[in-house]
Amino acid sequence: MSDRIRQDSFGEAPDAGEWLVREDPDARCFGCGQGNERGLRLRFRRTGPGAVEAEYEAPEHFAGAPGVVHGGIQAALLDEALGFAAHAADDGQDFDLVTVEFSLRYRRPAPSGAPLRIRGRLLRREGRDYWVAGEIVDASDGLLTEATARWRRIDGRRVPRDAD
Amino acid sequence: MSDRIRQDSFGEAPDAGEWLVREDPDARCFGCGQGNERGLRLRFRRTGPGAVEAEYEAPEHFAGAPGVVHGGIQAALLDEALGFAAHAADDGQDFDLVTVEFSLRYRRPAPSGAPLRIRGRLLRREGRDYWVAGEIVDASDGLLTEATARWRRIDGRRVPRDAD
Repeated sequence: MSDRIRQDSFGEAPDAGEWLVREDPDARCFGCGQGNERGLRLRFRRTGPGAVEAEYEAPEHFAGAPGVVHGGIQAALLDEALGFAAHAADDGQDFDLVTVEFSLRYRRPAPSGAPLRIRGRLLRREGRDYWVAGEIVDASDGLLTEATARWRRIDGRRVPRDAD
Repeated sequence: MSDRIRQDSFGEAPDAGEWLVREDPDARCFGCGQGNERGLRLRFRRTGPGAVEAEYEAPEHFAGAPGVVHGGIQAALLDEALGFAAHAADDGQDFDLVTVEFSLRYRRPAPSGAPLRIRGRLLRREGRDYWVAGEIVDASDGLLTEATARWRRIDGRRVPRDAD
């Protein structure tokens, strides 16, 4: 995730739930920037307090082994989901978060060219630290990859983000 | 990392050390496939037993926050380094590895558009499991991001890789 998130609502959205999308055409974040045609262009929606979800189908150029989404691209999908979840937990307040720690467990291959669902949710918050978790599941809701992370809130100033 | 690694030597390589590069123009792995013009096209060289290194300069479309390499792209860089290190440890034997666990710690922002060095090394091996570690450092060898992972060797058969 990059930059602050601007929350927009789209009444015509196919799914209910508030959308958390950076519609700014100049938004270039590899994960969520709708203006980055080489990026993932993820569009998350809030599914509950501190819970977000997005759908994604990876093109083959994001595969590692043929037909399997590269582990780093899966990390990018989950990094976005967890960061959006931390932001969503605070109801869109304008603040910065940085990734501090990020752990993944790869359970089953994530297929490219097939619909995937990426979820993130807040586990707990202690002061400036947000513990978040998420997963990538397939169209049958089968678990593919799990992740947990700790993000840190940086109040009141622009920060050089850790990693994203 | 995807597929088995074919080791090629390039006498004209600017750096000494055996190169571990999949020169196959059809190699499409997002991380190491030289034939994937949308990928990272990493070229690792062996720097010691079970130790590899590559240089990379990330274009801005791989940034998260402006000027900072996206955390997921950093994960892709490190995933490749750690996988190559595990392979390098076995002297290029032909076998498959899958990522089981992968953890990252983001210390400082990794700048896009600047030379980065990505390193991987084998920590220990127990049976089919390889514990590997690596880091991304800047041009001054300053630590930016650290990673550890456990890879598992899958002998004698093609496998649906976990994540890459």
